[in-house]
Amino acid sequence: MKVGDRHYRSIWMEDGAVRIIDQRWLPHEFRVVTVESLDEFAAAIREMWVRGAPLIGATAAYGVACAMARDPSDGTLTETCEVLHATRPTAVNLRWALEAMRAAVAPLPAGDRATAAFAKAAAICDEDVEMNRMIGVHGLEIVREIATRKDGPVRVLTHCNAGWLATVDWGTATSPIYQAHEAGIPVHVFVDETRPRNQGALLTAWELAGHGVSHDLIVDNAGGHLMQRGEVDLVITGTDRTTARGDVCNKIGTYLKALAAHDNGVPFYVALPSPTIDWTISDGFEIPIEERGGDEVTHVQGKLADGAVSSVQISPDATPARNPAFDVTPARLVTGLITERGVVAPGELAGLFPDRAA
Amino acid sequence: MKVGDRHYRSIWMEDGAVRIIDQRWLPHEFRVVTVESLDEFAAAIREMWVRGAPLIGATAAYGVACAMARDPSDGTLTETCEVLHATRPTAVNLRWALEAMRAAVAPLPAGDRATAAFAKAAAICDEDVEMNRMIGVHGLEIVREIATRKDGPVRVLTHCNAGWLATVDWGTATSPIYQAHEAGIPVHVFVDETRPRNQGALLTAWELAGHGVSHDLIVDNAGGHLMQRGEVDLVITGTDRTTARGDVCNKIGTYLKALAAHDNGVPFYVALPSPTIDWTISDGFEIPIEERGGDEVTHVQGKLADGAVSSVQISPDATPARNPAFDVTPARLVTGLITERGVVAPGELAGLFPDRAA
Repeated sequence: MKVGDRHYRSIWMEDGAVRIIDQRWLPHEFRVVTVESLDEFAAAIREMWVRGAPLIGATAAYGVACAMARDPSDGTLTETCEVLHATRPTAVNLRWALEAMRAAVAPLPAGDRATAAFAKAAAICDEDVEMNRMIGVHGLEIVREIATRKDGPVRVLTHCNAGWLATVDWGTATSPIYQAHEAGIPVHVFVDETRPRNQGALLTAWELAGHGVSHDLIVDNAGGHLMQRGEVDLVITGTDRTTARGDVCNKIGTYLKALAAHDNGVPFYVALPSPTIDWTISDGFEIPIEERGGDEVTHVQGKLADGAVSSVQISPDATPARNPAFDVTPARLVTGLITERGVVAPGELAGLFPDRAA
Repeated sequence: MKVGDRHYRSIWMEDGAVRIIDQRWLPHEFRVVTVESLDEFAAAIREMWVRGAPLIGATAAYGVACAMARDPSDGTLTETCEVLHATRPTAVNLRWALEAMRAAVAPLPAGDRATAAFAKAAAICDEDVEMNRMIGVHGLEIVREIATRKDGPVRVLTHCNAGWLATVDWGTATSPIYQAHEAGIPVHVFVDETRPRNQGALLTAWELAGHGVSHDLIVDNAGGHLMQRGEVDLVITGTDRTTARGDVCNKIGTYLKALAAHDNGVPFYVALPSPTIDWTISDGFEIPIEERGGDEVTHVQGKLADGAVSSVQISPDATPARNPAFDVTPARLVTGLITERGVVAPGELAGLFPDRAA
């Protein structure tokens, strides 16, 4: 989508190099960096220069391609995939992208591997853009239907950043919002700040502001109250991993919003490209939940009055923190899943993907 | 409770002056300030140098006493009560304390008013301490009962600061915790940071650290996940106002934790001294909800690496914010109310206070 006058994807090739936006500095600074070595790709994923399931997969794919350009050996291919997979073990389409790259590259003679790997990485990116566009096409109809029943904007609450910055373009949860906005349907977005890393405040708000989509930042605590007061028409979130029966593993706090939506009769949708479906798991509570460092909880990054980006400690020195990064929203709380093939109830997921389901 | 080697209340008389802790600087700086003029008392309440329903009431009481010492006229009494009531209109025991002060002072001749007012303010403080101690006595039995059924510590989740800093001493939600700790029952507290003002991270964590109570800071998003995984035995929160039927108006986000507790079979208790009961309202959704400035959402205060306390902006310059300060937890989600007279189901509140109920 647009940043100023230029249309960007979140990862792209330029002058023969892979470029990404180092999202750790948004919204205060817009930094584009080149990634080339395996260490750089691993750091970019592990330290969340890039985040969001689809973009993590795309970045890993280019990480394999760059590795093949340096040394197209079987050993390097195996090592690269192992190192990149270990960076974010919860992200299922990191694994998916690495397997796709290995399948495209491994059968080829060494001399053909680099070219094929870059082509495959580019294809993964283009497929992601097309999937997200189609999520928007299907999700737009949900927004449109609500718009016909009421006056004023359709008020959408979203959690974390499932925007174009989390994918290659369009975003997942934001794709219906952007498409509704472009179709002239008035929308207003309540953006959960999404502690501990504040991806809503930092990234989703930045995306929406850049596109002129009406929005308000809210603390994660506020969404239930707004739903009780009838101020939310619709919740759309993304997902890091969705199980075969439709349990949704997503950013910590998603479950609380799903409970509030259910308690107040607000439709709760999850937007997902099909690679984030883990057909090997049915029960979401079998998904291992990553626990990250406590400093993400005890410290908050932002912009000082003088414009410098810095981190402040909010808690006493003696206080430890727990930091589970994801939670599981059971399928019973999910109104529908918005996929590139259409919108279905969680229990009907396998019917929509008979070619994929186990 | 203790700060270092000295036992403090949150408001006290010393050398003929009213002293409070300016809680805006905790946990990074422990600042004791003297309040004397009406402007200072109004600012202390409105700008949250002090916060928490009982402490707001006690502070307002001393505000009236100081006013009577300056000018014991009817006009000053009326003006003082009006100015102080307007500072935090949602806080029902601000109104209660002001009415108690007026009733104690108004019938007296001008020459007797100051002495009577200081005596009444001191009595309000002592009554608050005794009420909170009794909340702990009754709440301790809930903790003790859970402790008999399990190994390891009783894990309590709490939201915001309903600790001794929010009252005159003991706290409400924390009183059972402190008493269990002193009784030798192992407890572990999950402290919600409680955005936007982070009273959990700043104050509750500081209190618990000072008393050696085992605790972890968590983001507001994490509690539901911890309950799903069986890591929370009990939730105890405070309340700013409780209705006659037991609907609980408390810090924004309380409702989300009550939903999660209900969904996971975790007992959800609310600790309250009886002055926070509003017998004139049954339906909690009739309570007006204060909306505070958006800068509380867009900015976070904390300690920089050099030790200075500063504020950082977390969102883009162009992003506005909504900031409802409280939400309403319906009585159906509340396991029990812990009062100074005992523990009851929400619907039995009137039976416990037949002398007060309408």
